[in-house]
Amino acid sequence: MKNEKRSELSIGIFDSGVGGLTVVKEVVRLLPGERIIYLGDTARVPYGTKSSKTVVKYAQSNVRFLLSKGIKILVIACNTASAYSLDVLKETVEQPVIGVIEPGVKKALDTTRTGKIGVIGTPSTIKSNAYNTEIEKLDESAEVFSKACPLFVPLAEEGWHEGEIAHAVAEKYLDYFRNSDIDTLILGCTHYPLLKTTIQSVLGENITLVDSAEETAKAVMNMLENRDLLGNNNSVSVREFYLTDNSDSFLSIANRFLGKDIEDIQLIDIV
Amino acid sequence: MKNEKRSELSIGIFDSGVGGLTVVKEVVRLLPGERIIYLGDTARVPYGTKSSKTVVKYAQSNVRFLLSKGIKILVIACNTASAYSLDVLKETVEQPVIGVIEPGVKKALDTTRTGKIGVIGTPSTIKSNAYNTEIEKLDESAEVFSKACPLFVPLAEEGWHEGEIAHAVAEKYLDYFRNSDIDTLILGCTHYPLLKTTIQSVLGENITLVDSAEETAKAVMNMLENRDLLGNNNSVSVREFYLTDNSDSFLSIANRFLGKDIEDIQLIDIV
Repeated sequence: MKNEKRSELSIGIFDSGVGGLTVVKEVVRLLPGERIIYLGDTARVPYGTKSSKTVVKYAQSNVRFLLSKGIKILVIACNTASAYSLDVLKETVEQPVIGVIEPGVKKALDTTRTGKIGVIGTPSTIKSNAYNTEIEKLDESAEVFSKACPLFVPLAEEGWHEGEIAHAVAEKYLDYFRNSDIDTLILGCTHYPLLKTTIQSVLGENITLVDSAEETAKAVMNMLENRDLLGNNNSVSVREFYLTDNSDSFLSIANRFLGKDIEDIQLIDIV
Repeated sequence: MKNEKRSELSIGIFDSGVGGLTVVKEVVRLLPGERIIYLGDTARVPYGTKSSKTVVKYAQSNVRFLLSKGIKILVIACNTASAYSLDVLKETVEQPVIGVIEPGVKKALDTTRTGKIGVIGTPSTIKSNAYNTEIEKLDESAEVFSKACPLFVPLAEEGWHEGEIAHAVAEKYLDYFRNSDIDTLILGCTHYPLLKTTIQSVLGENITLVDSAEETAKAVMNMLENRDLLGNNNSVSVREFYLTDNSDSFLSIANRFLGKDIEDIQLIDIV
């Protein structure tokens, strides 16, 4: 297919559920004219407490669905799926594949002055060591401190982003960084930008938070530019949302994030 | 098959993950000589935020696995799966089927003096109205107050059963019952007995907590007695544990609950 035609295809994005909408939000902001197909695997959410083998299997079935819809680039908008399935998807998918880990790491290395970087994520993402590996690959001298924060996802999904409980949970987890001298913290889960205000208030203003969603959207734009795959901005922007199970929290967060009601959500059965 | 032979078969128990171990613990206490086969669907956990259709599909695949192992009774040790799949499983499974809802309801109706009963559970269990329906069936005059508590499961899985955060979360949810005049609260999720101390301390001693796990174990014993299916207490007790995904929290909770290390956990692929 010529690039002229390919460029009109969609950006395919998947996540375990609702978290990847933080990436969709940034992609829409940077590339308002692009078609987007989003798949949230709400029937099998969450991925962050599951094993590598299971996460890879789920990622592959999500990608088969997106490929069947015709996409020009694949975005893994989930840290756990990026940690475990990026390599295997790069090998098997013809289209360019972008995960959320590398863009966040590059930004963190650009930002840090102390050379000490914190990472927070789900238990599976932290266990995978994907952030440590990526940081080491780009800068051997950087020091990484990482901490799993399992309650942050359910807190965000419950809508308790701020307030006494969110603050107490954040204090308990982030105490880990107290004497680490980090000056940069990567939000290594696409849900965590929802808790940004709480996390920043616990850590103080001297620590810069890196939001992978923003960085990933920039990486998508650069990749499309470099490959001459940017869409025609005059085309009517189409955003399709597919879920593997009904989800009330998806609807409420999607509407909040994308600024208008998402009407066209379709349920699919890939599990 | 004669009852003599059937009685030597296993009690089959499934849950979405680790919560059903509260039921296993009580079954072991009451019926130490019985063989038990437990399946925790850790690859697709949690069920409590998923739709009826998806939960029924998952329950059916779990039951196919247990039936293939040879069981004499089926126990649905998960409130959400009981709420959505008990009726369909009773219709399709030859063996007696016991869920966790009816036993808890009976105990609550025996206990209450005000006739006002509280129920807490996952969003899906509460949405199903299964408790209201069951209570109404047995006592039309009883009044039911129900409240979904989505953060209780992740709190229990994180091991934060007590302390400041568990207390603050419980206060926020249970404030709902403040002026309801309930004197009995059903713990409508098999994880919640883990939070019993915290819940009781927030509600005060005048409200009796009903632990469905204990009541379900009694119902299993009665059902086996009535059908002459009790196992031979002299047989060596065998407990087999199957999971659909590796789970660290399963191991730690299982060991805490069952008092000794579970060594023989087998991973299966039914998803």
